[in-house]
Amino acid sequence: MSMLDNGTIGVFDSGFGGLTVLRALTERMPQARFVFVGDTARLPYGSKSRRTVARYATESAQFLVREQGAAFVVIACNTASALALDAIKDAVPAPVLGVIEPGAQAARGASKTGDVLVIATDATVQSHAYAEACGALGLRAMEKACPLLVPLVEEGWTSHAVTEEVVRVYLGELRAEAEARGMDADTLVLGCTHYPLLRPVIEKVLAEGAGRAMRVIDSAESTAEAAARLFAVKSEGAIAETEIRCFATDSVEKFERLGSRFLGRPVGKVELIDLGG
Amino acid sequence: MSMLDNGTIGVFDSGFGGLTVLRALTERMPQARFVFVGDTARLPYGSKSRRTVARYATESAQFLVREQGAAFVVIACNTASALALDAIKDAVPAPVLGVIEPGAQAARGASKTGDVLVIATDATVQSHAYAEACGALGLRAMEKACPLLVPLVEEGWTSHAVTEEVVRVYLGELRAEAEARGMDADTLVLGCTHYPLLRPVIEKVLAEGAGRAMRVIDSAESTAEAAARLFAVKSEGAIAETEIRCFATDSVEKFERLGSRFLGRPVGKVELIDLGG
Repeated sequence: MSMLDNGTIGVFDSGFGGLTVLRALTERMPQARFVFVGDTARLPYGSKSRRTVARYATESAQFLVREQGAAFVVIACNTASALALDAIKDAVPAPVLGVIEPGAQAARGASKTGDVLVIATDATVQSHAYAEACGALGLRAMEKACPLLVPLVEEGWTSHAVTEEVVRVYLGELRAEAEARGMDADTLVLGCTHYPLLRPVIEKVLAEGAGRAMRVIDSAESTAEAAARLFAVKSEGAIAETEIRCFATDSVEKFERLGSRFLGRPVGKVELIDLGG
Repeated sequence: MSMLDNGTIGVFDSGFGGLTVLRALTERMPQARFVFVGDTARLPYGSKSRRTVARYATESAQFLVREQGAAFVVIACNTASALALDAIKDAVPAPVLGVIEPGAQAARGASKTGDVLVIATDATVQSHAYAEACGALGLRAMEKACPLLVPLVEEGWTSHAVTEEVVRVYLGELRAEAEARGMDADTLVLGCTHYPLLRPVIEKVLAEGAGRAMRVIDSAESTAEAAARLFAVKSEGAIAETEIRCFATDSVEKFERLGSRFLGRPVGKVELIDLGG
């Protein structure tokens, strides 16, 4: 196991969704300092191109390492992990962990049939990063873009009948397509950091069908577990209580207001930064 | 009536929605050259702060005037019009028309009771730009943010049962709140350039209630009418057939694919530009 030179772990996302990853990280690494960047001035990444996402994500990672002294960077965003992991690794002199690989690993641990379904943003699906990561582990994966789920979560409709119907439409199409291709899927990967807030609705809809029971994999949880396996905080760097410092590139008031939904507790004072775009 | 020094009119939006304004403009000013910018790398504006929207919108307007020689700029975006009209006017040496004022003028022409409802993005509603513009014309306006409507249009669900239900929820809440405040609204302003694609669903839902019949105002139409009233193209600048040149700050393929839904015809070859963010 590697040791962090200091207790600072950098975490970033296009917005608030990555706070679900931060929450899972704080539960497993309570003695670390966390610095989080939400690139809210340029969110969402999920509808944008590889070139644009790579440029934005690299700027966040560089801020965390160069200006905040992070010894380890977690990409708490599926889209940035899918489209820009290599670009970020090239851009910062620190280890970088994305959410795709841990999610695929967790799917391999969960699936008995070897067939998995993945729901994610448009950009993540178009990159086929999950299908490739799953394929490398011997799994077959079918991916589906669900672009309405992030706006529904941000509207706060996490248990609304409309959201349930949207989930029913998306999962119905995905399961039908998987069956048409002869797949016998038993695992669903939540390939976007907003989706854990919809887990109760997703599990309800999955339970409706007459089909096989499905295990749900939350890549936020899987990533936090992978981070805790990879790194320990040196005792001289350890602190008594988790510290979280949050930065955003747009309205800090909105971040402070909405962020607590994802973090599960108040995010505290958020500082405004300019990443140049 | 002013005359344009040349036939070039600059039009911009955060994304594709503004193509509904461009479409209305081409119908009323067929002899003009149009240059359109979709700032797709930084869309949407509707969830962002005034500071950020003003900065982005100013960069688009400057590109249109300085680099494309536009003699007149139309802000084909309600959010940018609401939050950044003055900043844009200060930033470019050309007349600038936003969509809010024409929308409010059209509402005054349509309303008999003097009470109007406005649906728009979160940022437009928080600015209260429509309430102010309507108030200055002697109207009372009640505004409501409908953040799910843009994603539903972009998902292509313009006549989906889910969209109908979302519209029913939003309009039901808005009408109930207006009635609770003693308003007798007879006009609904579509305060976002995506919403004209939902007009059939909106009119269907409006017709369901036992309440007063409602007129629907499309600010894209109103803005095109205002532009055609304000400016004529000098005969030496006039061209035989409408020319449209489109630029985008992110994936031109996606712009070419989705843009035709809004423009009502193929957008042609889209050119990639970098506005620096």
